[in-house]
Amino acid sequence: MNFTELVNKRQSTRKYAEKRVERDLIDKCLDAARLAPSARNSQPWSFIVLDDPKIIATVSEKAFSGIYKSTRFAGKAPALIVVVTEKADYITRIGNLIRNIKYSLIDIGIACEHLVLQAEELGLGTCWLGWFSARAVKKALNLPRSAKIDILISMGYPLDPDYRKERKRRSLGEIRHYNSAGK
Amino acid sequence: MNFTELVNKRQSTRKYAEKRVERDLIDKCLDAARLAPSARNSQPWSFIVLDDPKIIATVSEKAFSGIYKSTRFAGKAPALIVVVTEKADYITRIGNLIRNIKYSLIDIGIACEHLVLQAEELGLGTCWLGWFSARAVKKALNLPRSAKIDILISMGYPLDPDYRKERKRRSLGEIRHYNSAGK
Repeated sequence: MNFTELVNKRQSTRKYAEKRVERDLIDKCLDAARLAPSARNSQPWSFIVLDDPKIIATVSEKAFSGIYKSTRFAGKAPALIVVVTEKADYITRIGNLIRNIKYSLIDIGIACEHLVLQAEELGLGTCWLGWFSARAVKKALNLPRSAKIDILISMGYPLDPDYRKERKRRSLGEIRHYNSAGK
Repeated sequence: MNFTELVNKRQSTRKYAEKRVERDLIDKCLDAARLAPSARNSQPWSFIVLDDPKIIATVSEKAFSGIYKSTRFAGKAPALIVVVTEKADYITRIGNLIRNIKYSLIDIGIACEHLVLQAEELGLGTCWLGWFSARAVKKALNLPRSAKIDILISMGYPLDPDYRKERKRRSLGEIRHYNSAGK
């Protein structure tokens, strides 16, 4: 499968088979994330992989409830990856201030999409999750309150590997202009 | 080339051959970006592709000068992609506030890495640029001051396709823990 095919095949998977994900496959996905580029090579990420059903249940109970209940499907995934956004180095933080951008969020986007695409190639389904109680995740895992948990990724074998959701995207003509803003 | 190979092969390219990049290849890269996932499928991106040397020179003269001169190599790229971060929809913005995250930055990370990896597969070199004067870019392209230009991507055929830079990354053991924070 080449990259074009991979990108076309990737979709969010919200229903998982009751099958454990082998740790060597999870590690392959994390290794792809590890190699991602980042601002000043700051690599502002670390990953806590939950694959113990009891721990996933404890985390999920509070993290996906109340206003966050739309993501409670993730509690049924055989693996849940907690992405910790690490603090950038001093010079990158000065850059953040001057440019008024949090580069680490862009870096998390890059690294986790490496993870997601690697999973897709390995036959695994994933879903990006930005909507959950970070406070509840930190409490359940005994992480300090200062830890930044911006993203979780649920992972597992798709319950129905042949299921294809219709993909809704703006057309290329709508989002791309040559040499001017095109307006 | 499978995804693992692609991720291992990708590196930042800062020296480009004096060869125009065919627009159908640029469009393929943008099409890969177009298919990226985003928070609530908000697709908060559009792209202004500069491949007219005169326009690239005008933009570069001011955007990569002064404190930003470390990225002036990008002015010699045959193509420079200006990534416009679009405003998220109302509900996503409420989510931003509640979670205290700018999801659109994560989305830009995902989409642009699709672009970068697709380029790599097509034999093109790219470099992520976060360090430039966005004000100068907007002025040169007559974009409104309110436009958000967080990222540029330079693109071209690598001057030396065989050049391999040593890759410095933390090891997997340093960034991944199973079922606890591992401390």
